[in-house]
Amino acid sequence: MKRMESLALRYDGEKLWILDQEKLPREETWLEIRTPDEMVEAIRRLKVRGAPLIGVAAALALGAHAEKGHDLREAAEKLRAARPTAVNLMHAVDRVLAGESPETLFDEDVALCHAIGEHGSHLVEDGDGIVSHCNAGGLATAGIGTAIGVLRRAWEKGKRFHVYVDETRPLMQGARLTTWELSKLGIPHTLIADNMAGVVLQSGRAKKCLVGADRIAANGDFANKIGTYSLAVLARHHGARFYVAAPSTTLDPRCATGADIPIEARRPDEIRGTWAPADVPVFNPAFDVTPASLVSGYILDRGVIAGF
Amino acid sequence: MKRMESLALRYDGEKLWILDQEKLPREETWLEIRTPDEMVEAIRRLKVRGAPLIGVAAALALGAHAEKGHDLREAAEKLRAARPTAVNLMHAVDRVLAGESPETLFDEDVALCHAIGEHGSHLVEDGDGIVSHCNAGGLATAGIGTAIGVLRRAWEKGKRFHVYVDETRPLMQGARLTTWELSKLGIPHTLIADNMAGVVLQSGRAKKCLVGADRIAANGDFANKIGTYSLAVLARHHGARFYVAAPSTTLDPRCATGADIPIEARRPDEIRGTWAPADVPVFNPAFDVTPASLVSGYILDRGVIAGF
Repeated sequence: MKRMESLALRYDGEKLWILDQEKLPREETWLEIRTPDEMVEAIRRLKVRGAPLIGVAAALALGAHAEKGHDLREAAEKLRAARPTAVNLMHAVDRVLAGESPETLFDEDVALCHAIGEHGSHLVEDGDGIVSHCNAGGLATAGIGTAIGVLRRAWEKGKRFHVYVDETRPLMQGARLTTWELSKLGIPHTLIADNMAGVVLQSGRAKKCLVGADRIAANGDFANKIGTYSLAVLARHHGARFYVAAPSTTLDPRCATGADIPIEARRPDEIRGTWAPADVPVFNPAFDVTPASLVSGYILDRGVIAGF
Repeated sequence: MKRMESLALRYDGEKLWILDQEKLPREETWLEIRTPDEMVEAIRRLKVRGAPLIGVAAALALGAHAEKGHDLREAAEKLRAARPTAVNLMHAVDRVLAGESPETLFDEDVALCHAIGEHGSHLVEDGDGIVSHCNAGGLATAGIGTAIGVLRRAWEKGKRFHVYVDETRPLMQGARLTTWELSKLGIPHTLIADNMAGVVLQSGRAKKCLVGADRIAANGDFANKIGTYSLAVLARHHGARFYVAAPSTTLDPRCATGADIPIEARRPDEIRGTWAPADVPVFNPAFDVTPASLVSGYILDRGVIAGF
């Protein structure tokens, strides 16, 4: 494979590296990934995360494995099972098994992000306040990101706006990663706890919401990081626009509706932390499903599809 | 003053003690409060918290101060300024300055909680799923609590239900305190991140929400812990009942609407924690205002007042 490099993924022609997103923003540590099993572990622990990036990273892990002369089938199955909700992972594994090159997937994701950013940039207006959830940026893709790609392209075009960053419990991707990216891009932002988005919309500070997606069903329902659905309901109540930015690799026509999307349940300790009673029962879905009826528009690489 | 003891406040006839709620549930430490200044500091740090308890605790601090022969006016002003949103604090300080005994306030709060619990228990039904926010229990009052008092009385009457406990970022009163109380009471519960309440309501797991209040304006708008407003909007979207439990000491007829309630802004570091960039701008209101139009019913000591 040729050399490839993105914000959080690097192949130097010989070795595969990931930026350890568990440690961001306090430490910027690159980890060598030597086997598909190590990539599975990195994906499970969210050291590599973001639906498009997981797909590309799995493809590169398979590509590096193939270059060492290994058979791919067992590794492919393990990678596919690493996280069940993001469909990009399944698509990417299938495509590499069918003979497509990992480079193709990497380059394609870069191009998809650019197209999403370009289309979405027209929806951002001077003076906007925009609520973001989780991280759908350069850390979540091989390119400039989906939701953050939109913000980046709008900013580059001279539009001036402010982003309210949901911290995104339990794993704090907003607080740790989106703030880090927006700071690098010079885009003004304010960090909030997830439960403050209501006040931000109520007060008129923000009138738009912009999120990514892990899987979009045929009817437009989509899965994304837990908390996205609550934000969509809040947007509807306040008459705010609610946009989803995602590449076509996130579409899953085999899921008729959001009810068909498998939702990953994660460890109770992510919610308990060090503060809650050690044995308290916990509900910890990693994603939720937002119905198409709450979506103002889908910002895809092929253009913006209007929602309700 | 006579001896008084509640779950988190104790006067032994000579010394005043508080249960350090910052350390719960991992440590149950009682702190002696020797001066009104120490009580101010304990209130500011949320070692003593919950609108009704803050009021009673301030009254006891003034009472102990008076018994040592001190003038109360300066101490009263400092206590009044300790937290601006909960009106019980202002009421309690005013009443002690006007000559009412701290014992009266303590005993009254116990009785108010009991009446709230009794009235509210009729709204809880077998099989209910109920979302709670923050902590409005025995730790937040001198009695059995407001929202948790309702659950406690319903449980004692044999009703069987399940509570979904919002962890309540940033200070985790739900994760730390409500779980601790419900566990002691033997009431089944599940801890969730605040951004999961949407899914809990969407899935039908819960069809009721029950919260406390820090101040209720004349028109029924009320201030409560940040995140309460988002929960109220979610309840409305799902056709769930949304109840507020509070004593009459929480009513503030001098506030015509919620817009007149002062909202305390707290330190950015509560949101940044150890994980976000150290200099990220933060919005950290400690409370939000829910309009009366989203309230199904007010559970007061004088009875249940129907909302919308």
